[in-house]
Amino acid sequence: MNKHELDTPVAVIDLDRMENNIRKLQRYLDAHAIANRPHIKTHKIPEIAQMQLAAGAVGITCQKVSEAEVMAAGGVTDILITYNILGSTKLTRLMKLAKQVKLSVTADSVQVINGLATAAEAAETALTVLVECDTGGERCGVQSPEEAQLLARLITDAHWLHFGGLMIYPNNENLDPFVQQTSALLVPHGIGIERVSGGGTPQMWQAHTHQELTEHRAGMYLFGDRYTLRSGALTLDDCAFFLLATVVSRPTANRGILDSGSKSLSSDLLGLDGHGLILEYPEARIYGLSEEHGHVDFSACTSRPDIGERVTIIPNHCCVVTNLFDELVGLRGDQVEKIWPVAARGTVK
Amino acid sequence: MNKHELDTPVAVIDLDRMENNIRKLQRYLDAHAIANRPHIKTHKIPEIAQMQLAAGAVGITCQKVSEAEVMAAGGVTDILITYNILGSTKLTRLMKLAKQVKLSVTADSVQVINGLATAAEAAETALTVLVECDTGGERCGVQSPEEAQLLARLITDAHWLHFGGLMIYPNNENLDPFVQQTSALLVPHGIGIERVSGGGTPQMWQAHTHQELTEHRAGMYLFGDRYTLRSGALTLDDCAFFLLATVVSRPTANRGILDSGSKSLSSDLLGLDGHGLILEYPEARIYGLSEEHGHVDFSACTSRPDIGERVTIIPNHCCVVTNLFDELVGLRGDQVEKIWPVAARGTVK
Repeated sequence: MNKHELDTPVAVIDLDRMENNIRKLQRYLDAHAIANRPHIKTHKIPEIAQMQLAAGAVGITCQKVSEAEVMAAGGVTDILITYNILGSTKLTRLMKLAKQVKLSVTADSVQVINGLATAAEAAETALTVLVECDTGGERCGVQSPEEAQLLARLITDAHWLHFGGLMIYPNNENLDPFVQQTSALLVPHGIGIERVSGGGTPQMWQAHTHQELTEHRAGMYLFGDRYTLRSGALTLDDCAFFLLATVVSRPTANRGILDSGSKSLSSDLLGLDGHGLILEYPEARIYGLSEEHGHVDFSACTSRPDIGERVTIIPNHCCVVTNLFDELVGLRGDQVEKIWPVAARGTVK
Repeated sequence: MNKHELDTPVAVIDLDRMENNIRKLQRYLDAHAIANRPHIKTHKIPEIAQMQLAAGAVGITCQKVSEAEVMAAGGVTDILITYNILGSTKLTRLMKLAKQVKLSVTADSVQVINGLATAAEAAETALTVLVECDTGGERCGVQSPEEAQLLARLITDAHWLHFGGLMIYPNNENLDPFVQQTSALLVPHGIGIERVSGGGTPQMWQAHTHQELTEHRAGMYLFGDRYTLRSGALTLDDCAFFLLATVVSRPTANRGILDSGSKSLSSDLLGLDGHGLILEYPEARIYGLSEEHGHVDFSACTSRPDIGERVTIIPNHCCVVTNLFDELVGLRGDQVEKIWPVAARGTVK
């Protein structure tokens, strides 16, 4: 089937470009002896995870237990969940997973570590735990090397837990000093930091500048989007992820309405102006979204689309778009080669 | 099961309140002899559509053919699709639906009407078409009564199409004059406007002030959200839709991180400040979302939550949240009474 026969809106992948993106990052990280552990939140498809592993990734990263369950069912055997797991329901599922695959998780508090320790003990199953450190990302993570050291010792002291190192997101200039200071604090206790896992697609080509980094996690590098383009980490020719849409209305000379709204493009702005780049009309601005309509201003364009015309959009943020679709269509040139169910879509638990 | 046993994040409905919202709008529209045609984009669940119909709705509104297919399969027999349907794939599906249920659609251009006429003729099936009019909403819709008149005549002239009246969204002060001017232009052609369908939850209690309105479409009235609260159309005590979330990190004295990000709350702002109202901490501000994390500033709160504590969030926009979940949980008080699959979730075609 040709891509022009696909009904819109539809999310499509340029397979050549995606495969090239997989190879390129792997080659770079290999050259610097940094382990590659891609984040599957971007694609949520076990078959694509397998392609990343086949290229040389040491394992994958998931954000939720439910994502990890889908990936384990899809044959992935080494998973890091970069999330504080809390509550008996999730902990029970986590320990079930820990019996099936090589599993590691992160923690940034005594409460989370205590929960993990209790669950691991009840399951009589070892679990590797990394301490999440906030080096400026201001999301989760301990605030100081002193706190990191205390949690590392707590993990080490728990019978069924194994201290797996430090996790940081995103990589920045504080990464090395934070790790070095934590390491120095742990030396008297005989505790080493076996793994320093950093992440972020915008920062990926600078991974080698962090001397302490042993592992890198990137998600969006696979597809690219407007956010990644703005960061400079990928170019327009690297972009492998598009939304195909149709112009359904041209109410005025300047206004055009697409069949793609916040339920297909998502309303993520990430600081960008507008909701996507229309490749055929790069001067156009998707200035608003309602649920099933994209509102476009074509006033800056020399030509304007007709009703029924199809356009190709690079979304602001590929990960949230994947999560809105039940399947992604893989294209080889203009031909449909694959239709993948987004197996881990909607797995927010 | 008690709601406290539900794992988070989870979208829940207060059934008493939802049922009350259904009754209240129906009573109001009945009192003013305005037909009620609720928009199912908010819930996407056939069983809830059936509750709206049982209360007195004349039919339902869908935004996409795929939503209508799910609703028809769920036993709904009168459907208006308020969307320009284009392309042979969708038109084929549309005409198949037209053979099954009482179907009407909208159009705002010659191109869309020609496509509908050709499809209806090929299927030898009658189809009712309303003309969408832009009375200030600035999305789709013809810009003037003259254009509306031309399209109404085009529909009337098409053998298998039936001119069903005018569709407007959202209701505003231009509705009556636009309809009256169009009507006057159609009189010489012997064409009457049998139905004037307006819509919008924020405007619902003013529906009776539009003398030309014969039908009203509302979606969010069922659940309510921060957007509806701001409009004044519903009060906090009417709100029937909540996201239950868990505090997974408290990295600093003021910062708290929830297990709900843009993949469960959506990033829709709709002009609001922050990404949701936390009922237990109304002074808290959800200032940012990453995909699986909600970033909360608790600095204005007198007390702060502990790690592991559960909170109840009223999202900014209920419709897009429903679309992110595979199921909605109906609560009677604190007890789980229903678990509904969101059957029309992800149906953007």
